[in-house]
Amino acid sequence: MSHTLNVHVTGEWTKGVQTRVHVRSFEPFIIDEPRALGGHDEGANPVEHILAGLTGCVSVMIAIIAKEQNFTYANASFDASGTLDVRGLMGTADVTPNFQTVTLHVTLETEETDERLRALEEAVESRCPVMTMLRDSGVRIDGAWTRA
Amino acid sequence: MSHTLNVHVTGEWTKGVQTRVHVRSFEPFIIDEPRALGGHDEGANPVEHILAGLTGCVSVMIAIIAKEQNFTYANASFDASGTLDVRGLMGTADVTPNFQTVTLHVTLETEETDERLRALEEAVESRCPVMTMLRDSGVRIDGAWTRA
Repeated sequence: MSHTLNVHVTGEWTKGVQTRVHVRSFEPFIIDEPRALGGHDEGANPVEHILAGLTGCVSVMIAIIAKEQNFTYANASFDASGTLDVRGLMGTADVTPNFQTVTLHVTLETEETDERLRALEEAVESRCPVMTMLRDSGVRIDGAWTRA
Repeated sequence: MSHTLNVHVTGEWTKGVQTRVHVRSFEPFIIDEPRALGGHDEGANPVEHILAGLTGCVSVMIAIIAKEQNFTYANASFDASGTLDVRGLMGTADVTPNFQTVTLHVTLETEETDERLRALEEAVESRCPVMTMLRDSGVRIDGAWTRA
């Protein structure tokens, strides 16, 4: 049995700094930039999609690992933010174009013990693909897991 | 003047492995997984959003750098794919949960010289935040820039 998961998207430039992206048979979506960054502001921007992917990935991993650990929760919510030094992408200073920091707050509604909550958090943070990608790219990741 | 760009998203678990994500005042969108991965298949999955962010980011950087270099193009299209070894996220083997490989093909409709096309490509690849994030996380990035 193959362990390989293949994923694929396509896209095309539409105007300005805007791109239309296609994922499987879902409705295509627009990636753009705010007007302050030279865009038409008709969709989330690329780095917002990275934070969206982080949020979705942590949520998937919570669901998978909670099931493994027989951990019950009634609700989960997420707040993800990031900072970039725009001189990196503008090419005007020798700083990384990548995120400088990412902060992720996870709020779980659960009656499980603190110890079991910590165990869930540690497993999610070590196995989540997007968390791993960000951490391994050198981004400082802050934030906390708290109860609702 | 501040060089810091701040980005922010929020989200909440909806059901199964599904999350609703909010970015500024845009319509919220659903991140889910295919049924084969235990989801309800009601939206692109987290790693597809990473490839979408890569596509959008490369497109933004082409627009910005083409303007700097007085490089003209009539169209740009993108094909991004990635592989993951699912044993990483399942915790069943000592492999990275992150992408194993990402392949990005960029097709530009342009009458600029090969030399100027290579210069554009190199600047985009070194200054694109999402490309930098993936490369610095240890992912092997393949692909080519070709003419339409």
